[in-house]
Amino acid sequence: MEDKLMLMIPGPTPVPEQALLDMAKHPIGHRSKDFEAILEEVTQNLKWLHQTKGDVLMLAASGTGAMEAGIINFLSPGDRVLVGSNGKFGDRWAEVAIAFGLNVEQITVEWGKPLDPEQFREKLAADTGKEIKAVILTHNETSTGIINDLETINKHVKAHGEALIIVDAVTSMGATNVPIDEWGLDVVASGSQKGYMIPPGLGFVSVSAKAWEAYKTAKLPRYYFDLGKYSKAAAKNSTPFTPPINLIIALQRTLKMMQAEGLDPIYKRHQRLMNATRAGVKALGLPLFAPDSCASPAITAVAPVQVEAEKVRSIMKKRFDIALAGGQNHLKGKIFRIGHLGFVSDRDVLTAISALEAALIELGVDSYTPGAGIAAAVAAINSKSD
Amino acid sequence: MEDKLMLMIPGPTPVPEQALLDMAKHPIGHRSKDFEAILEEVTQNLKWLHQTKGDVLMLAASGTGAMEAGIINFLSPGDRVLVGSNGKFGDRWAEVAIAFGLNVEQITVEWGKPLDPEQFREKLAADTGKEIKAVILTHNETSTGIINDLETINKHVKAHGEALIIVDAVTSMGATNVPIDEWGLDVVASGSQKGYMIPPGLGFVSVSAKAWEAYKTAKLPRYYFDLGKYSKAAAKNSTPFTPPINLIIALQRTLKMMQAEGLDPIYKRHQRLMNATRAGVKALGLPLFAPDSCASPAITAVAPVQVEAEKVRSIMKKRFDIALAGGQNHLKGKIFRIGHLGFVSDRDVLTAISALEAALIELGVDSYTPGAGIAAAVAAINSKSD
Repeated sequence: MEDKLMLMIPGPTPVPEQALLDMAKHPIGHRSKDFEAILEEVTQNLKWLHQTKGDVLMLAASGTGAMEAGIINFLSPGDRVLVGSNGKFGDRWAEVAIAFGLNVEQITVEWGKPLDPEQFREKLAADTGKEIKAVILTHNETSTGIINDLETINKHVKAHGEALIIVDAVTSMGATNVPIDEWGLDVVASGSQKGYMIPPGLGFVSVSAKAWEAYKTAKLPRYYFDLGKYSKAAAKNSTPFTPPINLIIALQRTLKMMQAEGLDPIYKRHQRLMNATRAGVKALGLPLFAPDSCASPAITAVAPVQVEAEKVRSIMKKRFDIALAGGQNHLKGKIFRIGHLGFVSDRDVLTAISALEAALIELGVDSYTPGAGIAAAVAAINSKSD
Repeated sequence: MEDKLMLMIPGPTPVPEQALLDMAKHPIGHRSKDFEAILEEVTQNLKWLHQTKGDVLMLAASGTGAMEAGIINFLSPGDRVLVGSNGKFGDRWAEVAIAFGLNVEQITVEWGKPLDPEQFREKLAADTGKEIKAVILTHNETSTGIINDLETINKHVKAHGEALIIVDAVTSMGATNVPIDEWGLDVVASGSQKGYMIPPGLGFVSVSAKAWEAYKTAKLPRYYFDLGKYSKAAAKNSTPFTPPINLIIALQRTLKMMQAEGLDPIYKRHQRLMNATRAGVKALGLPLFAPDSCASPAITAVAPVQVEAEKVRSIMKKRFDIALAGGQNHLKGKIFRIGHLGFVSDRDVLTAISALEAALIELGVDSYTPGAGIAAAVAAINSKSD
């Protein structure tokens, strides 16, 4: 049905109507006093969301651009780095690090399993010469719906003392707790079309005092992504280059919405959406790709055996105008992924689960009692466990 | 007056209402068939605008990001490059080239004067060892309102035979003729918030076959700005990283508007806007910063002597809600700049000139016959010279 699309992919995520209307406002000059005031407010509220007193910088770039900036500003050619890889995005950060001539050691786990903190501990403990300059990892692996144990891995990095921790929080920021100052996360990158509830085009990088120290001697070449320029400009409520004005004005709106909801309620909502989605999928007899212990609060991957994943996606789209994500790389055709990140309510999950049941019926799958998916999802929503 | 702002700065430029409404559309998935169709159409129409059969690639970045991509994809550390500098943006490309370890020779001219093609000819002719790998220059210097003689400089580059020509066309693309294939321009970078008539956040880079040859051996590190990835994805109507979806959908609209108007009428309109602006300013007794021979069709810089430039800007903004640009770097306070780029009509120039007369009266400037500005602007608009 025309104009009826419902996005349940891990990005772009749904955008609130008020933020869409902000997108349609005529841009104002980015060197004006009016825009300075907007930048000042947005920057303060970004610090609130990031739970940091440090810098949170905005770039006209995707999340990948933000992560690249997070890597190249703090390292020099040949620096030894550990990169955690258990999905498409972990692999990508290894590619970035290799492209810039870093000495990359990947800590790899099969897609669909979480990174093993013990492997990080061993490598870091063995590095008595303090050669490891950074540990780079993805908090929430969007490609598999796995959340990695950032807190524990970070403790091992802190025990090492020298290495920076550089985190892809693209699909965890605004979905689950990422207490930057409390944990001492050095560099945390994210992108606008996720928990921020606005369209794509704006990247974010937080930078700790320790990372700024490393910046002073870091020799990888950079200009557009030189975070020093962004920090210097931000101190004057400005930007070094023309920013995506409309997105920043929409972000001003959604950050206020997030503050009205509160960080803890936002995290609890995502936890509830995850629980309801997983309960509903399970009750429909479809296997979940990620174990409960490391299930992502932002995205649920489903690995159906009775039916082809792409057929489910196709019917969900054609019959119900619900966009789900497919698998990536070798998981293409093997899984489908339900996004429940950002501006998503309990109602949206009920909608998705009920449509999923209808799609399974159409595909002749009878691995469940009719209505069981919704019954389980409703029970999960109403559970007082949180 | 609230909500009455009129932008006459060199970017962001005015955005047509239909494109603003497109900005407010809910983003669709960027890996969907629907978005593939949009990318296919937009890419074709970008080639039309760029007058090329070669690649025109889109990046989530500002114009500076696009220029950086245009430089780092085709060169290796230590490569000798000539960089033309006669304003803020020329200086910036020298900074980028230095940041990436190129061997930079700047061909510098005082701000407010055009680059001297003869200086390029001499350097290139003297380079019998063909060590110069690229000539980098700004077509239209936004900071001073000067258009450089790209056609002649390019002829000298072609006579050299080896060097690539890398062009910042950020404020010339869509304002004046930049026939990429006819002239053989290797790399041409631009940004969305200029002649494209949409908000900021999207950068463009065209790449010639010769530049792609250089890409194969170019060793500067790159990942997010690796144009090979963009080209490979574009061949499948896709993007390597999440694109700024809303901007691309707005661009689909404005490219159609540009096609309906036609390239030659667009260039003639900008020429007319320039002529009318300059005639009006002159008739008000204010000195123009750029000589007629190299005056920019996109922006007119005015260097008032009877009154402070910032006072003019201030009254234009406060009394008439017209945003003009100030001077940059050492020209701060010395000039103001009137943008007439993109979605700007004859009427807009009449509006600006009439408000400028009113502002001058308020400032006690009496260097003109009342009404002379508008009389001259109207005469210029009605002139059949084009």
